[in-house]
Amino acid sequence: MRLRLTVAYDGTDYHGWQIQPDRRTIQQSLEEALATVLREPVRVEAAGRTDAGVHARGQIVAASVTGNPDLCSLQRSLNALCRPGVAILAIGEASEGFDPRRDASSRTYQYRIRNHPAPSPFSQRYAWYVPQPLDVESMQEAANAILGEHDFRSFQAADCDADNPVRRVFESLWRREDEELVYEIRATAFLRHMVRNIVGTLVEVGRGARTVADFHRLLAATDRRLAGATAPAHGLCLVRVDYPTGAAR
Amino acid sequence: MRLRLTVAYDGTDYHGWQIQPDRRTIQQSLEEALATVLREPVRVEAAGRTDAGVHARGQIVAASVTGNPDLCSLQRSLNALCRPGVAILAIGEASEGFDPRRDASSRTYQYRIRNHPAPSPFSQRYAWYVPQPLDVESMQEAANAILGEHDFRSFQAADCDADNPVRRVFESLWRREDEELVYEIRATAFLRHMVRNIVGTLVEVGRGARTVADFHRLLAATDRRLAGATAPAHGLCLVRVDYPTGAAR
Repeated sequence: MRLRLTVAYDGTDYHGWQIQPDRRTIQQSLEEALATVLREPVRVEAAGRTDAGVHARGQIVAASVTGNPDLCSLQRSLNALCRPGVAILAIGEASEGFDPRRDASSRTYQYRIRNHPAPSPFSQRYAWYVPQPLDVESMQEAANAILGEHDFRSFQAADCDADNPVRRVFESLWRREDEELVYEIRATAFLRHMVRNIVGTLVEVGRGARTVADFHRLLAATDRRLAGATAPAHGLCLVRVDYPTGAAR
Repeated sequence: MRLRLTVAYDGTDYHGWQIQPDRRTIQQSLEEALATVLREPVRVEAAGRTDAGVHARGQIVAASVTGNPDLCSLQRSLNALCRPGVAILAIGEASEGFDPRRDASSRTYQYRIRNHPAPSPFSQRYAWYVPQPLDVESMQEAANAILGEHDFRSFQAADCDADNPVRRVFESLWRREDEELVYEIRATAFLRHMVRNIVGTLVEVGRGARTVADFHRLLAATDRRLAGATAPAHGLCLVRVDYPTGAAR
C-alpha cells in the first residue's frame, strides 16, 4: 500500500529533512517510527527537503508499506512515537505511483518576521526578529517583480545543483499580522535557499539599503553574488503542497 | 526611581517566577540583567508569582533603582541580556510607592487546550493536548458558576497558605480559536493552582465525567479533595494585570 502523510514539524531541534549520519532529522524520525509500528524497514520521501531549522505545517510524505494497515491506529501510534516536534496531521492512501516531489504542482512557503521594537519569547523559534521599521510598501513592490516565470539564479544557494534555475511564481505577498510581517510565496518549486535569499534581499529594500529598481536589476542579472544576506532558517515554514486534481488521490 | 516593567516569558525552561537556589527562574534572570546594566544590586517584585512552566504575556514587575536611567536604552540592554525566553515589552516610571501585587485590581489568565485528533508541534509548549471531543457548551455552563465572589478552597493547591480563600471572578469564558479551546479568567487575584484546578475540573465536565450540577456542588463544598486533576502548567499564561486608574501612573 502506498501511503500519503501530511506532516507538521518544529524544525528547531532537527538538522533538516534529509537523513544524515549522526544527526537528528525529520526523515530519520519518521522512518524509525514507521519501522517500529509496522515492524518492517520503511523508506519515506517528501515533497520538499527542508533545510536545518526550517518548519513545516503541511509537508507531504509518501511511503510504501506491506499489507493494508488501519490508517487511524497507524496515525495514533506514529503520533505517540514521533513527538516531540513532529506530528502526523493526516494519513491517506495514495495511488501506487504517487511521487510527492515530482507530482506536486506547487509549494507554498511562509516567512515570518517579528517587526516590533521589543522581542517576543513566543515568536523567537518561528520568526526572524527585525526591530527596525520596514517599508512594507516598497517590499511588496519589489516582491511583485518575481511573479511569473524567471531564472532565479540570483537567489540560489552557492551549493545548489539544480539543472534548471527557472521557476514559476504564482504568489508573492507580504501582509502584517499584529506584530509580525508574513511573506507568502507559492511557486512550482524552489531552488535551495531561494525563499531565504529573496526575503533577506527584500528586507534590505524595506530598510532602505536597496531600491525597488535595484531589486529588478538583481533578478535580471542572474548572479548570486549580488543578492542580499540569506534570511535565517527559523522564520521559514513549508505550509502547503498542492497536486493536480486526482494525481495524489 | 521606581520602574514598572511589562514582561513576557516562555516559562518552559524556567522554574517559575520566584528565586530559588540552583534553579533558573524569571526573577533571577531579570535581577541579574538589571544588576549588569545598572551596576548595582536590584530587587524586583511581580504582580503574580507564576509557577514553574507557566508563561506570561503581560507580567508587571517593579524595581527601585538609583538615579534616572534612560528607559529606552535600558529596555534595549535588558532585552539583549535576558533572551532567550524573556522579553521586556515596555518600561515606564511608576509612582514611588507602586506595589505591583497589592495595587493590582485584577489579573487575567488564559488557559489553552489543543482539542484536535492530531497533536501539533507548534502548540506543544503552550497548550494542553486533549484529543478527545469536549462539550464546550457544558464547560461554559459550569464556568459561569464561578462568576462573582466565592470561597475557592475547592480549587486551592494543598500547599496554598492564603489567609483568605475568597476571590471575585469578573470573567470566565471559553472560546474556540481554530484547533484550540481558550479559557480566559479575570479575577481580583488567584489562589495557588486555582486556574489549573478549575480547568482540570471543567475538562472533566467537557468529557462527560462530571455534570454541571456536580461542578456547582463541588464549588459550594469548599473541599479540595473533590476537585478534578490539576491541568498541566504549560497551558497557562498570565496575559494582563490591571490597576485602578492612576495607581500605577
